[in-house]
Amino acid sequence: MPRILVLHGPNLNSLGAREPERYGTTTLDQLHRSLAELAKELGCELETLQSNAEGVLIDALYGAVGRVDGVLLNPGGLTHTSVALRDAVAAVPVPVVEVHLTQPQAREPFRRTSLITEVAAGLVQGFGPDSYLLALRALASRVRK
Amino acid sequence: MPRILVLHGPNLNSLGAREPERYGTTTLDQLHRSLAELAKELGCELETLQSNAEGVLIDALYGAVGRVDGVLLNPGGLTHTSVALRDAVAAVPVPVVEVHLTQPQAREPFRRTSLITEVAAGLVQGFGPDSYLLALRALASRVRK
Amino acid sequence: MPRILVLHGPNLNSLGAREPERYGTTTLDQLHRSLAELAKELGCELETLQSNAEGVLIDALYGAVGRVDGVLLNPGGLTHTSVALRDAVAAVPVPVVEVHLTQPQAREPFRRTSLITEVAAGLVQGFGPDSYLLALRALASRVRK
Amino acid sequence: MPRILVLHGPNLNSLGAREPERYGTTTLDQLHRSLAELAKELGCELETLQSNAEGVLIDALYGAVGRVDGVLLNPGGLTHTSVALRDAVAAVPVPVVEVHLTQPQAREPFRRTSLITEVAAGLVQGFGPDSYLLALRALASRVRK
Amino acid sequence: MPRILVLHGPNLNSLGAREPERYGTTTLDQLHRSLAELAKELGCELETLQSNAEGVLIDALYGAVGRVDGVLLNPGGLTHTSVALRDAVAAVPVPVVEVHLTQPQAREPFRRTSLITEVAAGLVQGFGPDSYLLALRALASRVRK
Amino acid sequence: MPRILVLHGPNLNSLGAREPERYGTTTLDQLHRSLAELAKELGCELETLQSNAEGVLIDALYGAVGRVDGVLLNPGGLTHTSVALRDAVAAVPVPVVEVHLTQPQAREPFRRTSLITEVAAGLVQGFGPDSYLLALRALASRVRK
Amino acid sequence: MPRILVLHGPNLNSLGAREPERYGTTTLDQLHRSLAELAKELGCELETLQSNAEGVLIDALYGAVGRVDGVLLNPGGLTHTSVALRDAVAAVPVPVVEVHLTQPQAREPFRRTSLITEVAAGLVQGFGPDSYLLALRALASRVRK
Amino acid sequence: MPRILVLHGPNLNSLGAREPERYGTTTLDQLHRSLAELAKELGCELETLQSNAEGVLIDALYGAVGRVDGVLLNPGGLTHTSVALRDAVAAVPVPVVEVHLTQPQAREPFRRTSLITEVAAGLVQGFGPDSYLLALRALASRVRK
Amino acid sequence: MPRILVLHGPNLNSLGAREPERYGTTTLDQLHRSLAELAKELGCELETLQSNAEGVLIDALYGAVGRVDGVLLNPGGLTHTSVALRDAVAAVPVPVVEVHLTQPQAREPFRRTSLITEVAAGLVQGFGPDSYLLALRALASRVRK
Amino acid sequence: MPRILVLHGPNLNSLGAREPERYGTTTLDQLHRSLAELAKELGCELETLQSNAEGVLIDALYGAVGRVDGVLLNPGGLTHTSVALRDAVAAVPVPVVEVHLTQPQAREPFRRTSLITEVAAGLVQGFGPDSYLLALRALASRVRK
Amino acid sequence: MPRILVLHGPNLNSLGAREPERYGTTTLDQLHRSLAELAKELGCELETLQSNAEGVLIDALYGAVGRVDGVLLNPGGLTHTSVALRDAVAAVPVPVVEVHLTQPQAREPFRRTSLITEVAAGLVQGFGPDSYLLALRALASRVRK
Amino acid sequence: MPRILVLHGPNLNSLGAREPERYGTTTLDQLHRSLAELAKELGCELETLQSNAEGVLIDALYGAVGRVDGVLLNPGGLTHTSVALRDAVAAVPVPVVEVHLTQPQAREPFRRTSLITEVAAGLVQGFGPDSYLLALRALASRVRK
Repeated sequence: MPRILVLHGPNLNSLGAREPERYGTTTLDQLHRSLAELAKELGCELETLQSNAEGVLIDALYGAVGRVDGVLLNPGGLTHTSVALRDAVAAVPVPVVEVHLTQPQAREPFRRTSLITEVAAGLVQGFGPDSYLLALRALASRVRK
Repeated sequence: MPRILVLHGPNLNSLGAREPERYGTTTLDQLHRSLAELAKELGCELETLQSNAEGVLIDALYGAVGRVDGVLLNPGGLTHTSVALRDAVAAVPVPVVEVHLTQPQAREPFRRTSLITEVAAGLVQGFGPDSYLLALRALASRVRK
Repeated sequence: MPRILVLHGPNLNSLGAREPERYGTTTLDQLHRSLAELAKELGCELETLQSNAEGVLIDALYGAVGRVDGVLLNPGGLTHTSVALRDAVAAVPVPVVEVHLTQPQAREPFRRTSLITEVAAGLVQGFGPDSYLLALRALASRVRK
Repeated sequence: MPRILVLHGPNLNSLGAREPERYGTTTLDQLHRSLAELAKELGCELETLQSNAEGVLIDALYGAVGRVDGVLLNPGGLTHTSVALRDAVAAVPVPVVEVHLTQPQAREPFRRTSLITEVAAGLVQGFGPDSYLLALRALASRVRK
Repeated sequence: MPRILVLHGPNLNSLGAREPERYGTTTLDQLHRSLAELAKELGCELETLQSNAEGVLIDALYGAVGRVDGVLLNPGGLTHTSVALRDAVAAVPVPVVEVHLTQPQAREPFRRTSLITEVAAGLVQGFGPDSYLLALRALASRVRK
Repeated sequence: MPRILVLHGPNLNSLGAREPERYGTTTLDQLHRSLAELAKELGCELETLQSNAEGVLIDALYGAVGRVDGVLLNPGGLTHTSVALRDAVAAVPVPVVEVHLTQPQAREPFRRTSLITEVAAGLVQGFGPDSYLLALRALASRVRK
Repeated sequence: MPRILVLHGPNLNSLGAREPERYGTTTLDQLHRSLAELAKELGCELETLQSNAEGVLIDALYGAVGRVDGVLLNPGGLTHTSVALRDAVAAVPVPVVEVHLTQPQAREPFRRTSLITEVAAGLVQGFGPDSYLLALRALASRVRK
Repeated sequence: MPRILVLHGPNLNSLGAREPERYGTTTLDQLHRSLAELAKELGCELETLQSNAEGVLIDALYGAVGRVDGVLLNPGGLTHTSVALRDAVAAVPVPVVEVHLTQPQAREPFRRTSLITEVAAGLVQGFGPDSYLLALRALASRVRK
Repeated sequence: MPRILVLHGPNLNSLGAREPERYGTTTLDQLHRSLAELAKELGCELETLQSNAEGVLIDALYGAVGRVDGVLLNPGGLTHTSVALRDAVAAVPVPVVEVHLTQPQAREPFRRTSLITEVAAGLVQGFGPDSYLLALRALASRVRK
Repeated sequence: MPRILVLHGPNLNSLGAREPERYGTTTLDQLHRSLAELAKELGCELETLQSNAEGVLIDALYGAVGRVDGVLLNPGGLTHTSVALRDAVAAVPVPVVEVHLTQPQAREPFRRTSLITEVAAGLVQGFGPDSYLLALRALASRVRK
Repeated sequence: MPRILVLHGPNLNSLGAREPERYGTTTLDQLHRSLAELAKELGCELETLQSNAEGVLIDALYGAVGRVDGVLLNPGGLTHTSVALRDAVAAVPVPVVEVHLTQPQAREPFRRTSLITEVAAGLVQGFGPDSYLLALRALASRVRK
Repeated sequence: MPRILVLHGPNLNSLGAREPERYGTTTLDQLHRSLAELAKELGCELETLQSNAEGVLIDALYGAVGRVDGVLLNPGGLTHTSVALRDAVAAVPVPVVEVHLTQPQAREPFRRTSLITEVAAGLVQGFGPDSYLLALRALASRVRK
């Protein structure tokens, strides 16, 4: 049974509380429950991790090698600044799909570019929590091929 | 029954023939058949249009108002250059989801920025023809809400 | 009797409906009626064309040569991107006055510069539909000299 | 009876003498006579001031509050450099219309952007002295609304 | 017998009339006659198309596939702005030679870069109508190899 | 007893009236009264000057030499544009503390950089009228050392 | 009694030892003692944390929610690079005042811009350890309102 | 007998006192005495003006028309920021020679470009007070031709 | 009989050996033989020079004045960096045609712009050794006019 | 006996596995063995640390003070983004030599600049694992002086 | 008796012939005669060298050390491109005065900045051949001090 | 026995005399003696060349083909400006190691980027004359493999 790691970067711990008019009121726990349901339907196993620390996220990517078949990654603010995280995404032999709740490009100029997109397997963004569900489908479908 | 317009911009007529190592071998017809199947499953009606002309795409967006509930738009090369198409996406009171087969940001510098993303309802890219299928799901789910 | 062509670019078909808080509620038809009244007062004949297609606008500029004495041009989103439209404005031996309903420079960075201004005979912007009326006066006065 | 302040910035004292092939041969006095005639026709009262000093222009804007109904402002070279003048235009509760005799954008790169446009009520440029006359019409019409 | 498509972009319809001090007085018809003569000498068949519409030019490139052996393309103002035309040039399995009458780089900054050159088979510019004749030779020689 | 000059640049005359949602409703007079109270508490003498003219502010800085022990300077819009004011701040042998009511960097791009900060003794901003009070404390403490 | 968190970012552990000609000889311990004294005078409680790790600082900001009434943050080198820290400052419903010992803008170009300032409640910089004391006053005054 | 105006911009009042290691210890009075001596030798009459106000300098340039034969201008910090002063230099029918005591380009990036040089008759810089003396020779020689 | 100088810049000595997959296997000698044949057919005399030294190329341009009727110049890497070579091309009263074997713009960013094109009589590039042959035709035809 | 700390930043844990065509097949363990051998020959003691966390690397630099005589630092992706790490390198009174296996400048634009180089004692890059060995020699030689 | 080297860079061999409307009709020989006369008057000895080769100019600067007391350098087009020449000017313990016949900044953007000015002892430009004479005076006066 | 060419660019002739506080007091001769000793130890033969002329350095690179096994190149100021030298380094089938005595990136902005690094086999910089010795080791080790 394929195994998927869902990896959340900085500030996603506050989902549901932080700027709800932008990010919605769904909490990380509620999101995880929706993901678990869909994973069951798609025949996948899930594990999840949130961290505010770049180093922990990179460690998690390496720790996933040989153990999971794909990664959903919402890099939060590191999307725009972390060459180290990008290098890790490029280095691990596992497909990584980039996920955002919103359209970061529609905000400040420093959110115009993602360092991750160029090395990721795909990108889903702008649909709120549905972004994760769609990305899980994409990854499951890719893993099965 | 919700109705979705699938709108393809310049050069997508050559899908399956143009740079297959980049865009894959699925033709536009095959893609339309897959979309039709999924639409049926999701209980939507589809209509599709491909044009190499910016003006025709803008006309199609206005023509869709009051007739369709959402638009899937792959703007092709206009993604990066057409303020007029962007203005049309912003002007029509219909959600428009941006779709790309590949990750355009991973190519030339002039593909780094999309003029469409800031005014679109969401973005799915990098999964080949599956990008369209995921975007159709996203749009169907949004329309139903 | 001098003859003036009023040329509207992309998205101006939706005038009155699109973002009324920005563009007002006057429709293109109402604007044309006001222009016709003023033209009568100024002793001019008018013809009008709106198109979402760059090529149609360029064709219209060449088609106007030898037939009209001046052009009012609202290039819409093409203001900022179309070197081809600019070249046409520069090429036709007819004065072209640039018109905008709003102050485009007060919006996104990509609206800071107009490719048209440098080759136009003048510019009126920011007065809503009145921008057209003022520009018509300017053109009529110039044509009479 | 509405009252309009016509405010000329640096170097407009030399109108008619300075680079006549660019700015024409109309002097500031002649321009003021034409404006006075049109003001009479439109039922407005005018007052005029020219200064080469940024501070005097800003003082004039504040001095106009509660006394005039609109301002015609040709900021001259300050158009491109004065954040302080821009702040004053934004601060006074009076509509300010920006006027230029020529198309400044068609000259050196440092004339590409106006700091004033984003906070002005409108812009008329490129018609020589007629730019002022058209702007006076625009302002009179706006004040009457 | 090899077959060559000569494709002219926006504003080339006005050749001979538009800015003759820059573009010369040869008209498009005269240019086509010179090309026809040389084509005969080189043993090629020619067909020609001029359009002010980006979409028509892209359609023409796809329509040429399987029917012609090479394309001479003068993209006019689209040279500097059309990612869609560039993508079409890159997509069609036919060599495309870029042609300009003048040296566009010697003009405004926005003409410094051509989006077409990187994907074209070659470039000839600056020789007026002779640019086309030289490019036809180059293409004929390449097609014969 | 140490003597401090409080120097306000362009547009601060309108404090309390101009954009109160941004700058608050405290007037310059009220601010001066609060400063006087604190000055008394800190054992300082104050003098204050507001001018919309760059030259007057520069003159005031030179006039302060040998007479005051420190300067509080809110340069208003000159913060971002006046090399001459910066040169005066650098030239006078008196510590100058830069003060802003708001966070100018959070506004338009041309407010990102202060020409004054690099040559000032310190910076307090974002606390409304309290910015001045804090800066007065800082200066008093520095002068006493 | 209001409670304030003093948060020091990377390299502030070396205060007093690192480049004393730039940062002075006061150590972090001495600074904490001065802050404690002033806090007592102002009737506040303090807690302090220094970390070289971005993730720890972000965790501390979230951990402060519901427990403290304001935060003094010296983000060190993260000032200029951490979108994640900025997002945390923006996310927590607690006022955060940015503090620097020096004027970072007066150094290398990459220190010209602070990602934190736009989302902070205020900024005090350039006064050495006094920057913290002034910022504590500002925060205490704001918390009491 | 030819008449020369020596015009000093902002901060030159402090010559001899301000940053003597950069600008030397010669005062403005001493400089004027040296200039007077050389003027006598060259058979010129001199008048001098220093002002910290851009508007006063522009007025002085216009006031010089018809009365003096050349201007020595040290624009101080306005060199890099004043489009209005540049426009005045370009407008007056009198040759203006730009003078600097130092090499401004060797300092901060915002001193890299002079707005004055492009419209001045010549430039002498880097020789301390000798820059003025050399420029006076240049102007006297030019005036005599 | 017209006389043409063929001038090769840095690194063209290694033609045929250097990166043959980019520059082809034709050597400079073989290229010269092809040029000689075509020159004979066109009734021209040729002389050729290759140098890796900018100064030698500039000397050669001046040495050609009064002796040759046109120059074919492949400036190699100096294309993008040598203002001195550009000045020489602009200075000599002889038409100079720029030639490149490849499309330099399709490579690194620093090859995007040619300093030579703006002052050259024309440009042929991208056809390998045929670029020279076409340019010789262009020059011969121009010289005969 | 001099003591050297070898500090590896993010992603170097995967050395030998990650993109071997770029980074080679030597693992971190094998590299450490080679370094140990050379250290013995040079009479140095080594300690090594790899971490994916910026904060841990900064802590390690401060922890090294007073205990080691030099540091070899391969900052991985932090090379281009970490002002905090740069500040630590500048702060510690120990020479730090920057090491890279490859030539990072030859890759994406965001790898063009190293924030570390300006404050490091030297740089060795491009020789694969040999980069470390050479840097160890350099450091040993410097420490002995 | 002080000895001065006059060093002319690329293209100055053609003085008097090249673009006389820009550079005048004085030849290098005539200029040398005027310089010789003035040198005699000032009690200096001159030597002169013109070369189109950067390396020769650098060699000449080193060759001048210990033999001449100052250098007049017109670097021609190398002004804007040669870091090597700049390094030589900075390296030799002899004052070097930069000279230009015209105002290079008033031409193309790539002539905006001089690499030489920052390391030169002074700059005289814009006076045609008189620039050299003034610079000779400046150097003679400096050498005598 | 492997043979190495040591190639020094502009201004390295003055090593030991030029800015000794930056470049040290070792002369080129002393450096050559140290290199000769190490070469002997490593079993290599050396030849050395210094030139201030770009063309001579390029010639030397081509002259080295087939005769030497590696090149040590210190390009001096050409590092940042010479596309021609870069093309030569890329063209010759011999490994070239780039060497600098200092860290050029720590100086002026125009020294931030090396055109050579991307095509060199490796880079050693910042260790003074030791940079050459380390680079010789690197090259010797590479040549032996």
